[in-house]
Amino acid sequence: MDRPRLCVIGVGLIGGSLARSARARGLVGEIVGCSRDEGQLRQALALGVIDRYQTQPEAAVAGADLVVLAVPVGAMGEIYQRIHPHLEPTAVVTDVGSVKGAVIDQVREAVGAVPARFVPGHPIAGTEKSGVAASFDGLFDGRCTILTPVPESDPAATAQVRALWTGVGAQVVEMDPRRHDEVLAATSHLPHLLAYGLVDMLARMEEHREIFRYAAGGFRDFTRIASSDPVMWRDICLHNRAAIVPLLRRFAAELEGLARDMEQGRGQALHETFARAKAARDRYTQNQE
Amino acid sequence: MDRPRLCVIGVGLIGGSLARSARARGLVGEIVGCSRDEGQLRQALALGVIDRYQTQPEAAVAGADLVVLAVPVGAMGEIYQRIHPHLEPTAVVTDVGSVKGAVIDQVREAVGAVPARFVPGHPIAGTEKSGVAASFDGLFDGRCTILTPVPESDPAATAQVRALWTGVGAQVVEMDPRRHDEVLAATSHLPHLLAYGLVDMLARMEEHREIFRYAAGGFRDFTRIASSDPVMWRDICLHNRAAIVPLLRRFAAELEGLARDMEQGRGQALHETFARAKAARDRYTQNQE
Repeated sequence: MDRPRLCVIGVGLIGGSLARSARARGLVGEIVGCSRDEGQLRQALALGVIDRYQTQPEAAVAGADLVVLAVPVGAMGEIYQRIHPHLEPTAVVTDVGSVKGAVIDQVREAVGAVPARFVPGHPIAGTEKSGVAASFDGLFDGRCTILTPVPESDPAATAQVRALWTGVGAQVVEMDPRRHDEVLAATSHLPHLLAYGLVDMLARMEEHREIFRYAAGGFRDFTRIASSDPVMWRDICLHNRAAIVPLLRRFAAELEGLARDMEQGRGQALHETFARAKAARDRYTQNQE
Repeated sequence: MDRPRLCVIGVGLIGGSLARSARARGLVGEIVGCSRDEGQLRQALALGVIDRYQTQPEAAVAGADLVVLAVPVGAMGEIYQRIHPHLEPTAVVTDVGSVKGAVIDQVREAVGAVPARFVPGHPIAGTEKSGVAASFDGLFDGRCTILTPVPESDPAATAQVRALWTGVGAQVVEMDPRRHDEVLAATSHLPHLLAYGLVDMLARMEEHREIFRYAAGGFRDFTRIASSDPVMWRDICLHNRAAIVPLLRRFAAELEGLARDMEQGRGQALHETFARAKAARDRYTQNQE
């Protein structure tokens, strides 16, 4: 059998890196890119990330064996609706959205039911950069990809998507979509909001030039994720607000607790909080590095 | 004139790095270390960071031309009180504390007035690590050191401390102590509290093992500062609470604003916040890198 034709809709950091990695490891044949932004497509072509492109998703999926939706979470439903009538009967579709419940709901609404050959997925990988120029082969090496198949999902389709991610170096785990959204709200969505919120608050302070001038390396690392793509994160926040908003309020209450500890000079309580956090993080990084 | 004898009280990441850097660049003669933790001192000696050590600060400062206090902010007053009667008349004393107003107040209370040859200082450098084993020559290269001399300070003493920091590669700026504490509350103390608070909250969640398992690189960078020394940060929080607590509450209010934007589906407002933050951070890192 020929190597499968891959169609990547949304050729940015994630879509581009998947295309590069799949090609480099000989997992796919022709790679067709699609985007609303023809500049990105031309760049992807020039970089050899894709073999050709289409600006319309309906045309892009023609003849594709595997279709990867790598657009912001808010655009998934519309794209699915547009490609659905044009998919090959054997084509498998997956996505890389950072929210899974909302993507599944959008697809269900767009086409009436979750298609058996649609496998929702999310690679836990990325950088603060965006766009195809930032994409690279190797982004997924050793990282986790979470697949969240639903009862309607065809196990053979899930296996194909699993093979793609395993092939580009990721460890694949399956998880309930709602669980995925809760875990990611805690480890990714909330931290992004904190980083964005902090940088924005400081930037709006009158003396922000001086403030940023005296920021050290810790601040640069802490705020790195605030350089992420605003459209992508707007969509994530809107589509996972059910999980994020309660966590955000819980965290604000934690901060109020820390403020009261400070006001009342409770050094022991502060020390306990900091020591517990340090121990948890040291344990976590030990397991990862 | 012989090269000055340096006494470093608190031979950890900062004290150790200053000793290594000053020695490597030929700025000092003998280096005497002092610490409550004799294990650290033995390690510092074995690593060649110091030439000899004393466990009592009174003895350590004997004959020293330059004394650097590199202990947690809460210990500065007591140390100053103990060394004051034993300092050479020409000795210059500086500190590296992350809070300046409280250190100056402590020294004033300890000895009745701020000595003319005490120059409060703070190198804006460090890592999440602590202890002399993590110290290295070069930590201060290209970084800022803020000196906050008070009206009582002898300009010649300030110049000597400035020369030390310039000699180890730092850019030295002078600033009002209160201003320093406000700027650092925003760029360093608040971020540390957010990182500690987030990791602690997640670690206390029942499913924390799974949560940390699916954390990506962004989370690792964001929480790096939560691996910092809990005693040091307890002291900073207690001694700069006047600046930190209002900022912490202001930030909690920002989070509530973001939560409401999400609840009410205000995508445009979220996008504006994220885009403003991204622009500010990209501008700031462009200037730094």
